[in-house]
Amino acid sequence: MKFSQTFIPTLREVPADAVIVSHRLMFRAGMIRKLANGLFAYLPLGLRSFRKVERIVREEMDATGSLEIKPTVVVPGDLWKQSGRWDAYGDALMRLKNRVGADFVVSPTAEEAFTSLVRDELSSYRQLPLSLYQINTKYRDEVRPRYGVMRGREFVMKDAYSYHTDEASLDKTYQDMGRAYRRIFKRCALTVIPVQADSGAMGGSGSEEIMVESEIGDNTLLLCKACDYAANVEKAGCKSDFKAPPSPDAAKQAGLPPIEKIDTPSVKTIDELCAFLKTGAEKFIKTLIYRAVNVELDLSTAPGAARLEKRKPAPGAPELYPEAFFAVAIRGDLDVNEVKLAAALKASELSLASDSDVERLTGAPTGFAGPVGLHTLPLVIDLTVTAMNDAVTGALAKDLHYRHAAYGRDFEAWMISDVRTVKAGDRCPLCGGELYEKKGNELGHIFKLGYKYTKSMNVTYLDEAGKAQVPTMGCYGIGLDRTLASVIEEHHDGDGIIWPLTVAPYQVIIVPIKYEGAVKALTDSLERELEQRGLEVLVDDRDERPGVKFKDADLIGIPFRVVVGDKNLAADKPRVEIKGRGEKESRLVETAKAAEELAALVKAGLAELNS
Amino acid sequence: MKFSQTFIPTLREVPADAVIVSHRLMFRAGMIRKLANGLFAYLPLGLRSFRKVERIVREEMDATGSLEIKPTVVVPGDLWKQSGRWDAYGDALMRLKNRVGADFVVSPTAEEAFTSLVRDELSSYRQLPLSLYQINTKYRDEVRPRYGVMRGREFVMKDAYSYHTDEASLDKTYQDMGRAYRRIFKRCALTVIPVQADSGAMGGSGSEEIMVESEIGDNTLLLCKACDYAANVEKAGCKSDFKAPPSPDAAKQAGLPPIEKIDTPSVKTIDELCAFLKTGAEKFIKTLIYRAVNVELDLSTAPGAARLEKRKPAPGAPELYPEAFFAVAIRGDLDVNEVKLAAALKASELSLASDSDVERLTGAPTGFAGPVGLHTLPLVIDLTVTAMNDAVTGALAKDLHYRHAAYGRDFEAWMISDVRTVKAGDRCPLCGGELYEKKGNELGHIFKLGYKYTKSMNVTYLDEAGKAQVPTMGCYGIGLDRTLASVIEEHHDGDGIIWPLTVAPYQVIIVPIKYEGAVKALTDSLERELEQRGLEVLVDDRDERPGVKFKDADLIGIPFRVVVGDKNLAADKPRVEIKGRGEKESRLVETAKAAEELAALVKAGLAELNS
Repeated sequence: MKFSQTFIPTLREVPADAVIVSHRLMFRAGMIRKLANGLFAYLPLGLRSFRKVERIVREEMDATGSLEIKPTVVVPGDLWKQSGRWDAYGDALMRLKNRVGADFVVSPTAEEAFTSLVRDELSSYRQLPLSLYQINTKYRDEVRPRYGVMRGREFVMKDAYSYHTDEASLDKTYQDMGRAYRRIFKRCALTVIPVQADSGAMGGSGSEEIMVESEIGDNTLLLCKACDYAANVEKAGCKSDFKAPPSPDAAKQAGLPPIEKIDTPSVKTIDELCAFLKTGAEKFIKTLIYRAVNVELDLSTAPGAARLEKRKPAPGAPELYPEAFFAVAIRGDLDVNEVKLAAALKASELSLASDSDVERLTGAPTGFAGPVGLHTLPLVIDLTVTAMNDAVTGALAKDLHYRHAAYGRDFEAWMISDVRTVKAGDRCPLCGGELYEKKGNELGHIFKLGYKYTKSMNVTYLDEAGKAQVPTMGCYGIGLDRTLASVIEEHHDGDGIIWPLTVAPYQVIIVPIKYEGAVKALTDSLERELEQRGLEVLVDDRDERPGVKFKDADLIGIPFRVVVGDKNLAADKPRVEIKGRGEKESRLVETAKAAEELAALVKAGLAELNS
Repeated sequence: MKFSQTFIPTLREVPADAVIVSHRLMFRAGMIRKLANGLFAYLPLGLRSFRKVERIVREEMDATGSLEIKPTVVVPGDLWKQSGRWDAYGDALMRLKNRVGADFVVSPTAEEAFTSLVRDELSSYRQLPLSLYQINTKYRDEVRPRYGVMRGREFVMKDAYSYHTDEASLDKTYQDMGRAYRRIFKRCALTVIPVQADSGAMGGSGSEEIMVESEIGDNTLLLCKACDYAANVEKAGCKSDFKAPPSPDAAKQAGLPPIEKIDTPSVKTIDELCAFLKTGAEKFIKTLIYRAVNVELDLSTAPGAARLEKRKPAPGAPELYPEAFFAVAIRGDLDVNEVKLAAALKASELSLASDSDVERLTGAPTGFAGPVGLHTLPLVIDLTVTAMNDAVTGALAKDLHYRHAAYGRDFEAWMISDVRTVKAGDRCPLCGGELYEKKGNELGHIFKLGYKYTKSMNVTYLDEAGKAQVPTMGCYGIGLDRTLASVIEEHHDGDGIIWPLTVAPYQVIIVPIKYEGAVKALTDSLERELEQRGLEVLVDDRDERPGVKFKDADLIGIPFRVVVGDKNLAADKPRVEIKGRGEKESRLVETAKAAEELAALVKAGLAELNS
């Protein structure tokens, strides 16, 4: 392809909103242009690389035995109502109405569409397992789309969904997908970190995120210095402080004084309390009141449960409590991890209760809640609290606290759960080693969804005994745009992109010093010969100074550059210069051998990545 | 690929709404399933054929030098406001608002997105011509989606847009695209009819539709029995009856009596008039009052123009009249073609005026309008009326008509235009031969758009003299889903699809009579050998009766079927049966030669279509 015949509008300047390397370089290299916030068009050069990522993903999906289908991008809202996500998904779901008022969504994911198709076709266990995927346009109405195609509103996702008769079959596909994902990212020359992840709003349990390290990553990862433990902070655990509930006598045996009310005038925050009592935050039990939405956990034994509304959002969907309040107690120096808490409560949303709700439920203004004597709502305590037997905590009245509070003697929990946010410096839950933090971006995600969608959408098959059963389900996503941008984040230098061969828009760029005469003739014949050998070649035939062409070649990052100039052609043995994009120096190669050598280099480079 | 490892849910029954062959067969062959009205999912078999159509389209577009890009599917409404189509497009445009109330559309076509990208990048005449295309999801909120993927709401279109310094350059690309389209349809084994077409709401002039004949076609085509003239009825002309305006004396010279008012009590329709006056409809001048919306035609010389509102919908957009009324006169036995009329008036929409508007504008109830003495609004007369010099027509008063009315003597026109609907039996405008009608479906459309979008969206470049100029533009679309469905419409029999090799999901299907023992071994080795030769092979390894497998093989229409059975393998020279899908009889071929023979058949078949 001649540079003059394609459309690669390279630039020296970048827009102010391009703050990360991949966004800047994709823009400068003429790979993408912005149509609106979060909406990007791929130009020819960008699309070539995009298609290579797409092909790698497709090949690896096909290799797992997953079957490609193509549902629509616009999907009936009714399906989302059946699954319950029409209400649960939040504002990022682009809902729309057609001319006769029917509801639709522009798909952000496709559990509903796939499950609806499978529901209509599934009859027998013999059809299972069934693994289907698409590579298709998705839309999320992000509040703050940023970082170019790294976090756009419209993007392309490969999403696969699998259906199984049992957990073992699901686990096999889940493991196959995990391996396929590792191969995909290896082929794209990406260094990834697979982490344990919470499955968030997707429901279910058993999930892994494939992350790349990124300064602007929207995930915090905790990694162990000693072993290969890695987890998203949303899910990360740490060496437990859990104790079996101590007997009421334990405190007495430990010589602990009885619980005692103390005046703490105008003292509300933990910091103020620390100063007032001249002690550390780890001596306090912090108690927060949360409002949870759509709670699927059974609350029948919880204090105040009799007053709670309960309903079934759709036939087949599980019963839930549209709204419920919880008190959550945790050691004063720690933070509650709301994702862990939501998962423990099986709630779709969670927020701190308003001041008026706190006052109504605890009988005291915000700042004086505590576990002792709290019988109006269910008390969830973090594992750390079970180890506290001489704590300060709110006394459910203005300007009053307790001291010498002990778990097991002075209060019991309705539920004990790990709900703390793990931090750098905490100890690894596997080996006890020290944990450290990284920021990461999610490229892929594999989930065991379980029965969430198949139950709510009434999917059944007949088992060997002729009995109707509900299949279990997994889902597996990869963001293609984000994967491509991440390749650039990992492979660039100050001059531009350094494409790995597998994702490079072209493998070789020929730069004639001046595209005329013998130089032109050799350029054209080399292009032909390389293309006959199956290589993808860009020829910079523009009437530009060599410096401009070299700068653009570095910017767009083609793996091998061949310079054809009069001087080297005029020698006894005519030669061209060959340079790898990542190399500092070029080498002179006889023109007669150039094509063969380049073909060998490309073949070897591809083989290494694809191996 | 083994049948048991893919997902081809064939069916004997079809849903009641599948009334055309392609819809029925795509459904029965397990190629598609319905998600909702007008929304179809392609299953693995359907997607394979779809991708083949896509590849053919891509190869032929690339061969024209057009460059593939990938804008978004969801596009900012602002761009559509700039072009004026936000208001003009009508209810089929899927408009939506995001979470902060910004307007978007789910693209039905992409003139705006492409022109916006080009606007931002275009600076010099040296960048032109520029031809860009995408193959991407489109959405039209059809009132009555029908006929499966033939007329769906969501579909995939290849749409290309080209930008040029002058008409000659535009014409070259237009011709190149026309040739590419003919090649695309030839490669898909489709018999197409290229017809002259009106460009409708797209604006501009010079356009051709590529049609396939179809009983359920939504276009009426007029073709000449004598030459190769073909046109959409919306645009079709016929041998003209146009006369130069006769002098006022012509009627006198012809011995025509003076115009005379006659009583026609309670007579309103043409039929009633014919009966009352005992004459044929061709003696009447029918006069209709139309209400036109967004009229771009200059009406400054028209009667009543002073009262018309005039405005500029956007900076750069042409001035227009939001509403204007016209009287249109035509010979009584003919119909007004509203598409031609809208084009002549440069109006975006057209409808018959309400009874009250008719009464207000003509001073008479509906049924008594006529050209004589009508000075309140512009009079458009069809060419046929210029030849009428002894006509009956309404007298602008209840129960009164004129007779002996003559064009040139008794009335003049504000505009003379060809606005009649041509019918079978009319004479060819090229050769005078007889025209006949066919129903057709549009597969592709090429347009010379001119300056409509580049002007309204303010696109300029600097010419050689450094002066800012506006480029002219063309656009070129092909519906991929519809193309695929049309292949089935043209290639099927009572048993199922008969795929042309270029679009077949697989080229060879191997049907082992019973997939076990020697039959299984040969089936597997033949599959391997064929795949090594680059053929696409489906193996029906299911535990089904041979009859079921044969029926399914015919239904899904794979071009070559190979039957492997014990009987033929046990012979001295082991053999398999080979049968072309369109053939009646199978042939016995030695197993050792089967792969070679099949490879030759496939190669020859592909070569013929792709030549």
